[in-house]
Amino acid sequence: MDPVTDDLGLLAALGGGDAGRHPLPVRIRDALVVRIQRGELRAGTRLPPIRALATQLAISPMTIAKAYKLLGAAGYAEARTGGGTIVRLPSREPRHIADGPFPARPSAPGNLSQLLFELARSPGVIGFTGNYPAPELSDAEAFRATLARLTARPCESWFRYDPPAGREELLARLPGFLARHGIAAAPADMLVTSGAQQALDIVVRALVRPGEAVVAERPAYHGLINVLRAAGARILEVPLLEDGPDLGVLEDLLRREQPRLVCVNPTFQNPTGITMSREKREALLAIIRRTGVSLLEDDHSPEMRFSGEPVPSIRALSGPSDPVFYVRGFGKVYVPGIRLGVLLAPAATVPRLLEVKATTDLQSPAIMQGALAEYLADPAYLDRIAAIARAYAERQKRLTDALSRALPPETEWRIPEGGLSLWLRLPPTLDVTGIYYPAARCGVTFAPGEPFYAANPDPRTLRLSFGLTPPELLAEGADRLAAVIRSMAQSSVPASVMV
Amino acid sequence: MDPVTDDLGLLAALGGGDAGRHPLPVRIRDALVVRIQRGELRAGTRLPPIRALATQLAISPMTIAKAYKLLGAAGYAEARTGGGTIVRLPSREPRHIADGPFPARPSAPGNLSQLLFELARSPGVIGFTGNYPAPELSDAEAFRATLARLTARPCESWFRYDPPAGREELLARLPGFLARHGIAAAPADMLVTSGAQQALDIVVRALVRPGEAVVAERPAYHGLINVLRAAGARILEVPLLEDGPDLGVLEDLLRREQPRLVCVNPTFQNPTGITMSREKREALLAIIRRTGVSLLEDDHSPEMRFSGEPVPSIRALSGPSDPVFYVRGFGKVYVPGIRLGVLLAPAATVPRLLEVKATTDLQSPAIMQGALAEYLADPAYLDRIAAIARAYAERQKRLTDALSRALPPETEWRIPEGGLSLWLRLPPTLDVTGIYYPAARCGVTFAPGEPFYAANPDPRTLRLSFGLTPPELLAEGADRLAAVIRSMAQSSVPASVMV
Repeated sequence: MDPVTDDLGLLAALGGGDAGRHPLPVRIRDALVVRIQRGELRAGTRLPPIRALATQLAISPMTIAKAYKLLGAAGYAEARTGGGTIVRLPSREPRHIADGPFPARPSAPGNLSQLLFELARSPGVIGFTGNYPAPELSDAEAFRATLARLTARPCESWFRYDPPAGREELLARLPGFLARHGIAAAPADMLVTSGAQQALDIVVRALVRPGEAVVAERPAYHGLINVLRAAGARILEVPLLEDGPDLGVLEDLLRREQPRLVCVNPTFQNPTGITMSREKREALLAIIRRTGVSLLEDDHSPEMRFSGEPVPSIRALSGPSDPVFYVRGFGKVYVPGIRLGVLLAPAATVPRLLEVKATTDLQSPAIMQGALAEYLADPAYLDRIAAIARAYAERQKRLTDALSRALPPETEWRIPEGGLSLWLRLPPTLDVTGIYYPAARCGVTFAPGEPFYAANPDPRTLRLSFGLTPPELLAEGADRLAAVIRSMAQSSVPASVMV
Repeated sequence: MDPVTDDLGLLAALGGGDAGRHPLPVRIRDALVVRIQRGELRAGTRLPPIRALATQLAISPMTIAKAYKLLGAAGYAEARTGGGTIVRLPSREPRHIADGPFPARPSAPGNLSQLLFELARSPGVIGFTGNYPAPELSDAEAFRATLARLTARPCESWFRYDPPAGREELLARLPGFLARHGIAAAPADMLVTSGAQQALDIVVRALVRPGEAVVAERPAYHGLINVLRAAGARILEVPLLEDGPDLGVLEDLLRREQPRLVCVNPTFQNPTGITMSREKREALLAIIRRTGVSLLEDDHSPEMRFSGEPVPSIRALSGPSDPVFYVRGFGKVYVPGIRLGVLLAPAATVPRLLEVKATTDLQSPAIMQGALAEYLADPAYLDRIAAIARAYAERQKRLTDALSRALPPETEWRIPEGGLSLWLRLPPTLDVTGIYYPAARCGVTFAPGEPFYAANPDPRTLRLSFGLTPPELLAEGADRLAAVIRSMAQSSVPASVMV
């Protein structure tokens, strides 16, 4: 077993800027895991000595040592008596359902998220990774028919540049849509965005300068964390309790750190599924009003409620002079992949937001905006969306019934009142990285919890999203996952004793 | 004539962040011009004393003094004997064609670009502001037909979330499209973006950190300048000569400032229309290779060539290991408002660019990508685009013939080899701000040159874009503009003696 003498492909994997990325040891571990999973680094191979690799990559030996330690904790390496670190494969994999053909299309070297995406699409795998609806259980078909009607005849006005705020037809239609959710808003208070993700990005780019503090929930939507990192924000985390963020911690942070912005996702929070109580929303609004800090409210899918009473959004509870930025996308419930959303903002900030929107992509596609305006004109969508919510409620029940039967009792989780995800915390001896590949090989995938933490991720957490999972596979997927967890928990040792 | 005692609406106009905006005196002047044009500040009104307004806005008196001076230079104010500054209207307006109804929809306070957009759409006005094709003289109809065909039947795969790089059908089709322009590229070298604007934004966000230097042409596309400002870049300007940027100045800047990126728009540059010679492209590529600095090449519309020999893009001249980022949109030539483009990048940087793309908007709309792939599958578009270029060549000739006859000889301009714009420099006694509103009232609008400068704008420059102008109005528009320029030049005094 000769030691590896090249750079392990790490130079390429670590190239480019690093703002908004994971810490270096994590990235090195991920790149090594990818190479091991691909068979490019075989079990038994000796990894390069720490100092030699550090010199080759021009980084600190401490960083390499940490990366090797993380690799060991994930089950992919072990220390050898007499020195050196040896590649191994996590060996405690109960059975192999989907052992190949794993993705053929080459991904970028060391790009873990791309590999996860590919794994999730592999044949035979039951995927719990995509937190959005299946096309057949969304209103995509009605939108398709609208688009077909609109494009059936020549119409030049669908193909032109418009002002960055959005097309007038759509801006005129959105207040009625929002009013059904108790939100009063005029066209002058809003911009059309290319999906909710862009709305988050626009607000943060407009408000936050590098080094400024921003409060986010712990855990939070990874797309928000990426936006905050890209802006150079200092992210302050507020723990989520059962009824929403810990307002005591929040008030303390507001006093000590004077953050620029507080970001919340109060309904069916992504990733935890937690819904903030009405009392807490009102208390949060009172804090916002008292301190003057701005609030970013991501409200992705209030329609997907399966139990409990609807709670108004914070924007619905607030007045026009409150510094509340409200984000609503149309992909999570209505039409996946449509890439349209709406951003509501205090009127005085709209000019600045429009500048950022124009800098970002000038405008959202005119024809898509026109089709959404047409789609929203027929209130028949309300009944269809309600029926879709009932179907997802049924799917959530199938999945949670199966999990309740099969998961070991040390697994921590709860059933959210809505949304297309569940949040699990593994038994104490387990680490998600250690079960991800065994689970994929057993034909079930999920989203590791790590990307949902701005810092110090809880390595035991994971998200199961069932929007894309065929209903007849929900129970089988739950069984596969529970089997892997039980099997790994029985034979595992705490990660801290490895390497 | 009592002095104005409120804050002139300036607090609202100056609110929000100010990254990526004009200097404060310019913004104050713009806000005042908007209020004067709207009739909210009438001729003869005395503006607040400099110190009082400075205190109210909590900014330096110097800034207010500069703003008042700029307002005077633009013809909207004059110093009063005995002190004070009085609002006036530029009085030398030869005739009024489009005196009302000026836009009714309220714009944001002090938002000059929004007002310009509204003026350009006013009835009776011949607009030279939009630098993109008219829907009827683009290939929008063919794209519409493709979209209609695609959406005619239920098809779930058009409505889903895809990887951020883009849909496979489109990624597979783009190499063939690019090969027709002499560019060799594989799907792994590219990302689909929401238009060229987003591609510029993604490259700069991925590569440039706040405070880092970036070289841009002087003048440059204002959308690029906005992107660089938003990233906190220190913008270094390289003057444009007749055959492209001054490479002597560039080499000096590269030595002294070690910029992260050099940005060029070598073919039919926006706004000047200048095309970089092949020799200069090769010399620039040699500089890039020698110094290792990255190059961002914006290639918006090489198809729109009306005279001279085609010149290969710098990307076409370069090899796979060169740090060249190449941006191509489909809105400027093919389908206005489609918001799709492609970004070619060195393969090692693609993972980082994909992270930024995902942070920005996750992905571009799936159905639009699918329709573009279908559209590009039928090479019949080549003949249609060639016919469109011939039609625009004819329109450029009509416009430039009329301008040649009518403009005073002190106006500096030239006829570009292609593209949908002309760049003019007014006679020495004139300032664009001074003629913009008189011209609009005489029924002709254009883009002031100011936004195309990162610093120290040349106040005599303006851009005429004729892509949207009906052909029968081109000569009349040229005559109106030339009449305003002649009239104002005859009666004007140098701006430096005002206030």
